Amino acid sequence: MAKQTDLTSHFLRDPAFDDILGGEGLVRRMLAFEVKLAEVEARLGLIPPEAAQQVARSAASASIDMGQLAEAVALAGNPAIPFVKMLTAAMPEEAARYLHWGATSQDAMDSALAMQLGEVIAVIDQRLRTLGDMLAALAEEHRTAPIAARTLLQHALPTTFGAKVAGWLMPVIRHRQRLEALRPRLLVIQLGGAAGTRAAFGGAGELVSRGLALELGLDPSPLPWHTARDSLAEFAALCGLICGTLGKIAQDVALMMQTEIGEVLEGAAPGKGGSSALPHKRNPVAAHAMLAIARIAPGLVATMMAAQVQAHERAVGDWPAEWAVLPDLASHTGAALNHALAMMPALDVRPEAMRANLEATKGLIMAEAVMMALAQHIGRGAAHHLVELASRDAVRQNRKLSDVLAADPQVTTYLDAVQLAALTQPEAWLGDAVTLADAGVALWSRHLSGAD
Amino acid sequence: MAKQTDLTSHFLRDPAFDDILGGEGLVRRMLAFEVKLAEVEARLGLIPPEAAQQVARSAASASIDMGQLAEAVALAGNPAIPFVKMLTAAMPEEAARYLHWGATSQDAMDSALAMQLGEVIAVIDQRLRTLGDMLAALAEEHRTAPIAARTLLQHALPTTFGAKVAGWLMPVIRHRQRLEALRPRLLVIQLGGAAGTRAAFGGAGELVSRGLALELGLDPSPLPWHTARDSLAEFAALCGLICGTLGKIAQDVALMMQTEIGEVLEGAAPGKGGSSALPHKRNPVAAHAMLAIARIAPGLVATMMAAQVQAHERAVGDWPAEWAVLPDLASHTGAALNHALAMMPALDVRPEAMRANLEATKGLIMAEAVMMALAQHIGRGAAHHLVELASRDAVRQNRKLSDVLAADPQVTTYLDAVQLAALTQPEAWLGDAVTLADAGVALWSRHLSGAD
Amino acid sequence: MAKQTDLTSHFLRDPAFDDILGGEGLVRRMLAFEVKLAEVEARLGLIPPEAAQQVARSAASASIDMGQLAEAVALAGNPAIPFVKMLTAAMPEEAARYLHWGATSQDAMDSALAMQLGEVIAVIDQRLRTLGDMLAALAEEHRTAPIAARTLLQHALPTTFGAKVAGWLMPVIRHRQRLEALRPRLLVIQLGGAAGTRAAFGGAGELVSRGLALELGLDPSPLPWHTARDSLAEFAALCGLICGTLGKIAQDVALMMQTEIGEVLEGAAPGKGGSSALPHKRNPVAAHAMLAIARIAPGLVATMMAAQVQAHERAVGDWPAEWAVLPDLASHTGAALNHALAMMPALDVRPEAMRANLEATKGLIMAEAVMMALAQHIGRGAAHHLVELASRDAVRQNRKLSDVLAADPQVTTYLDAVQLAALTQPEAWLGDAVTLADAGVALWSRHLSGAD
Amino acid sequence: MAKQTDLTSHFLRDPAFDDILGGEGLVRRMLAFEVKLAEVEARLGLIPPEAAQQVARSAASASIDMGQLAEAVALAGNPAIPFVKMLTAAMPEEAARYLHWGATSQDAMDSALAMQLGEVIAVIDQRLRTLGDMLAALAEEHRTAPIAARTLLQHALPTTFGAKVAGWLMPVIRHRQRLEALRPRLLVIQLGGAAGTRAAFGGAGELVSRGLALELGLDPSPLPWHTARDSLAEFAALCGLICGTLGKIAQDVALMMQTEIGEVLEGAAPGKGGSSALPHKRNPVAAHAMLAIARIAPGLVATMMAAQVQAHERAVGDWPAEWAVLPDLASHTGAALNHALAMMPALDVRPEAMRANLEATKGLIMAEAVMMALAQHIGRGAAHHLVELASRDAVRQNRKLSDVLAADPQVTTYLDAVQLAALTQPEAWLGDAVTLADAGVALWSRHLSGAD
Repeated sequence: MAKQTDLTSHFLRDPAFDDILGGEGLVRRMLAFEVKLAEVEARLGLIPPEAAQQVARSAASASIDMGQLAEAVALAGNPAIPFVKMLTAAMPEEAARYLHWGATSQDAMDSALAMQLGEVIAVIDQRLRTLGDMLAALAEEHRTAPIAARTLLQHALPTTFGAKVAGWLMPVIRHRQRLEALRPRLLVIQLGGAAGTRAAFGGAGELVSRGLALELGLDPSPLPWHTARDSLAEFAALCGLICGTLGKIAQDVALMMQTEIGEVLEGAAPGKGGSSALPHKRNPVAAHAMLAIARIAPGLVATMMAAQVQAHERAVGDWPAEWAVLPDLASHTGAALNHALAMMPALDVRPEAMRANLEATKGLIMAEAVMMALAQHIGRGAAHHLVELASRDAVRQNRKLSDVLAADPQVTTYLDAVQLAALTQPEAWLGDAVTLADAGVALWSRHLSGAD
Repeated sequence: MAKQTDLTSHFLRDPAFDDILGGEGLVRRMLAFEVKLAEVEARLGLIPPEAAQQVARSAASASIDMGQLAEAVALAGNPAIPFVKMLTAAMPEEAARYLHWGATSQDAMDSALAMQLGEVIAVIDQRLRTLGDMLAALAEEHRTAPIAARTLLQHALPTTFGAKVAGWLMPVIRHRQRLEALRPRLLVIQLGGAAGTRAAFGGAGELVSRGLALELGLDPSPLPWHTARDSLAEFAALCGLICGTLGKIAQDVALMMQTEIGEVLEGAAPGKGGSSALPHKRNPVAAHAMLAIARIAPGLVATMMAAQVQAHERAVGDWPAEWAVLPDLASHTGAALNHALAMMPALDVRPEAMRANLEATKGLIMAEAVMMALAQHIGRGAAHHLVELASRDAVRQNRKLSDVLAADPQVTTYLDAVQLAALTQPEAWLGDAVTLADAGVALWSRHLSGAD
Repeated sequence: MAKQTDLTSHFLRDPAFDDILGGEGLVRRMLAFEVKLAEVEARLGLIPPEAAQQVARSAASASIDMGQLAEAVALAGNPAIPFVKMLTAAMPEEAARYLHWGATSQDAMDSALAMQLGEVIAVIDQRLRTLGDMLAALAEEHRTAPIAARTLLQHALPTTFGAKVAGWLMPVIRHRQRLEALRPRLLVIQLGGAAGTRAAFGGAGELVSRGLALELGLDPSPLPWHTARDSLAEFAALCGLICGTLGKIAQDVALMMQTEIGEVLEGAAPGKGGSSALPHKRNPVAAHAMLAIARIAPGLVATMMAAQVQAHERAVGDWPAEWAVLPDLASHTGAALNHALAMMPALDVRPEAMRANLEATKGLIMAEAVMMALAQHIGRGAAHHLVELASRDAVRQNRKLSDVLAADPQVTTYLDAVQLAALTQPEAWLGDAVTLADAGVALWSRHLSGAD
Repeated sequence: MAKQTDLTSHFLRDPAFDDILGGEGLVRRMLAFEVKLAEVEARLGLIPPEAAQQVARSAASASIDMGQLAEAVALAGNPAIPFVKMLTAAMPEEAARYLHWGATSQDAMDSALAMQLGEVIAVIDQRLRTLGDMLAALAEEHRTAPIAARTLLQHALPTTFGAKVAGWLMPVIRHRQRLEALRPRLLVIQLGGAAGTRAAFGGAGELVSRGLALELGLDPSPLPWHTARDSLAEFAALCGLICGTLGKIAQDVALMMQTEIGEVLEGAAPGKGGSSALPHKRNPVAAHAMLAIARIAPGLVATMMAAQVQAHERAVGDWPAEWAVLPDLASHTGAALNHALAMMPALDVRPEAMRANLEATKGLIMAEAVMMALAQHIGRGAAHHLVELASRDAVRQNRKLSDVLAADPQVTTYLDAVQLAALTQPEAWLGDAVTLADAGVALWSRHLSGAD
């Protein structure tokens, strides 16, 4: 009985990652492990060359019944044991006797996992790069577009949409640096034999291990890492970091897409973002998924952290905990990236709405500008107090802040109405926003050129 | 492209729960929701009776392409929107126009979820009951079998294996009480329409809601609960509690099954618990899975806790987070219960090994017994000190504790060698262990009889 | 060296709960445990009456050096061992010899914990009750005030603010039911002696246990629960549920308080919610803390779930994990409740802003109303399609939805301009909102009267 | 009212880290921030030089009432606002007016946090180095000492204790690499002003930011990172990785310290590891704490992951969530390292017990050795089957495996009794264990010499 259709398979999961990390993906790579193991062992004289050739031939034509395998896992306690048995049964005796020579279940599974993660990481890296390009282009396009910066969901000051997007871009650079640093720790061979001593290789363990690593496209590992799972947990954490960044972007988009705000909308498409009940609705859909994934990821990261406490030379319980959690986490991360890549080019950016929202508070958002101008004359504290009172009056009386201030002799002693009007233009108080947008874009270019 | 075979589908998951909670399971119950909604609405005169009949007829013959549906979810943002569209398309116009009348996506999905959880909860409850019966029988069978009680993994005192098992049993009673209390909070109808106001029912919302609840076997809900998700999180927490209890049992079994201890072994079976590398191995397999699940569950519970913060009348992000997490958590819980039910009757309990381990420390485990006897004469503190020193000497000199004590005049003033020998027999210091085992079994009977 | 001042001690923590659950709180209750234990044992003839009196006298005057105790914990592995030693040292020999008679560290600590949690739970329950009263009053006051219901942060339909608040209220009722059900599972005596067998009570263990429970205001426990921690984890989960509910309320408030929305504001007060840089800011502060706590709680709940896997008769590691996590979780929960209680009566509710926002979309929010009216004539599907197109035109052309519809002959065949204008008034499409607000308030009254 | 004594402050926490990360530690560094900010601004002509001097003088003599500050946080929503107010009030007007010029609360707090984390990281790094030295020495000392390798808590094969310890050492190298890579991402200045645009610096923001970074010993930051929290979450993850590694070591030690196994014991000391009830107990204490911390850390890491989703330019809720969680996580990590450093040199390693346990199964643990020898003649599959049967017989009949095999003609055709006896000596099947121990030690040396 197969697992039922997962209706979130294209929304919260990445079908491409599920293809790599699923059962068939694992079996395919365990087959490669067994074939290459035999090949290397034959080369080193540990097993007869004919045996290795037969292992390769039999593996090429082997057909593993996945349903039967899944059922056998429940008795065996891991997928490799019944896999090796089924493969053995499908081979002529001469090949079968040298299959899996010197290796243990976890060698096959962890090496396969490293191969799977190698493919997944390459895709993540590529997607991060594309996302970075998109964000850099978006930041550049809107480098001067004024928008309200919001702290604690309140208008704070004007910034530019480009600066905001540059802020989204910075973590993408760091994620790529992290991925790069992680590779040599994560994408390594596992070959320790039954308990990590490589006992059954008759002294040739290191040679087999290095040779096999080369064949499988993995780095060598100085020691087996059956119960040293820190690099797997580090990969999980990196997924958590990426999902967090994408969740932050999604939340900003969903907030800017609110009916009352409407500064940025997800692109419309037939069948996208509608409502079964409400004909006028245009819902965030990519943000919906990205935020969902940002909620899901932390719990899975925590499990991978907790599962590091693996007893002795192979853990009870903690090892299989990884099997359920890590592929899910990677698949969700892939999906979040996919949604981000779909969201960015279609983003409906509305500078006029940004401008309208900036002006909706009648100059209140320019309070700091006035305060700093006044502070030059009367000090920061007094200026803060004065502008705080004027802001309250402006709200209460529904007047422009500049008008209220222009009526206050404590202010007009230093700033006249014309100066106040100029001070309360958003463009007058963008600070370094444009420069920061540019700096972010430049940093991305420098990152791509390898200068960091 | 379908999700690949999940090789843990029979080891860490429960195929029966996946059947209930998977995509087909959801669609089947959403169909029931739509059919019964139309039926109730027709009865109340909201839609024509013929429309309801046609909805029922069309639903009965509807064939939803699950792969296509999964893909559409990625655009629509939830499964109900494309499901209603596909169902509409499969219906004659006269039926289609009254389909889903007044309801919203979340009404269909949450009501279907409540139906799914109702089935899941019934199975969990039944399994808890069977597990309780097994544990009660095991506790009774071994009520007097002495075993070392271990604190911080050190021998502490003798207890009985029956008392230990009775300790496993107590939480099972409490879990069933929790499940019973949760039912009326969890298994309730969701029917609020687009934003929880039941606006499209023309004032008949409460009648439709109550009528539909009755038809679907759910309890009525005084208010819609679109963004009040506490009872779902409570269900998740209960799963976490059950997985924790089973993880504790599994860990105890795995520890007792250690090569050096060998007091309890998981039952052997062809293909079970072997090793691909080691012909002599007999591995814990059920405990492997149960412990793995106890590691996985807390992260999923945390996500359901976090996902309660659902904005306004329908959440961005937090709602779909549930879709990925809750079915997994329930499926893992079902699997852990299955493993426990398979483990218990096959458990290979070895009282002789328990006895041998008790005696292996040459009476050290009886230190408290001697201390308390001495304490009657010289006070608790002095007795503790004296026995602590004797224990150290016994270890250092590899002698029996009773022999060391019998050579100490501070002791022999009060206790002679015969008394000391008697005091250091495990049976002499079981305390209430047998009574406690019996109390546990009795409590289970009382629980079954409904007296608690 | 004392722990430094925790600057969040009044913001994210509850000083009153920290007082109950902190080190002094634990020691005070462990003293009560030891005094009452001796008293009960004397009554049962296990120790001399004079000894019990002396224990009581010495405990009354004992002064435990908390700093020294904290340091000793690091060597001893738990607080009870050095506590008993320090208490012993402070007593005359005659009393000291009978101190802690038959008990173990965990007996003292867990019984003290049950006492602490009893006090904490009483306060939580009282605060939930007060919060419920406040929410019921708020729901009643604003039962008819129209406000936009928002799904995925988009305007959906009109509802009333009272109905929204009634939705916040429902989980409060359920939390109080959960608390009530939890009490008898959680507030129980722990008395098992060194390894749960009550060996050192000479057969009187059950009598001592019941007598002590009575003295300490706890329920009896049929078996010791040294490593059956489900009820503690259940308490943690309940804290997580409460924090989730309060986080949802906080998020709704923070969203409604956005500059562009301004429907509800946290009450202003001197020094509250200002900004060091921005004189015009009025920040959400209670919502800031409540949301923070809703983010913090799930991780702590997960740890308590994970820490249930306690080996044998006393756990290595998992038990002390509780000491760090449970008091923090309870303290945060207390703080979230405090913030909610401060927030509610001061809430600045602005029905005029709600109304203005409702009208800001020029009737779009009434789309469902029109659709359902049309659906009576042309079916739900066709009506949905027609109104979807009209909505798009209205947005594109910045016209009222009713005007766009009134220009469409497919519509005007069934609905004329007057009907359309009436249909697009928010009050015309509140559905059951007022009834639901009333139902929520009535349910709270019924809950208080004990009828549920 | 101060927070009560935390009795775990020396057991689960690191008082030195609490000193750095606590309230006083934060205030001290915020003072430095304000002083250096004024100094740099004066240098750049933004404020008068006298003002900067006065800020410095006033800060030097400022006495912040910490209790009052903690209470004010509850109203203000963060510690920096009341801190700046209190500091302002303590300064002459001329200094006060230029205090905090152009900065925002989060600038002061995040820069202070970066300084705090810089100190914490230096200590963590030093402790990891010392721990690495200790583990390398331990691995070297016991490089050839045979011990049972255990998989799923079952004897698997012989390995050496040195190889096991080398396995503990490898993650320590990787943690130091991670720490090194993290530094430039984490230890950076925060200076963005009210909303990240550096508006109030009049174009000199970048210069102020770079100058201030230099003064505070931090790296510059190209853009403000008010709501880009990935590097903080990465630090949290690294803490989680370190706690995981230490938890694994602790669990191995606690398991080897079991009464029945006794291969490695934590060092004894007065007051350490005793029991209030059991005079003979010698409990793991450092392992107790390390394992507890490994259970606690994942939940805190998850919160830091979740708290990355920070809205717009300053988050509601998610930011303060960090304040409660990050200092705790760091403090626990410090404590786990302290326990490891105390544990290692005092470890009581008992090679004779390791040897005894190896022999306890009468050669069973050598099953693979025999299988591989036989496999040379009859193939791996047949050999596995044959030795599996012999193993079962050996267990059932309580005989040596070599004796059972020597009685089987299918075996003796290829291997005689002498060969079988030799094959079942643990030393004969250590595989690469000694080489791997040496490789681990060499890798540590190479790491220290900077070659990796």
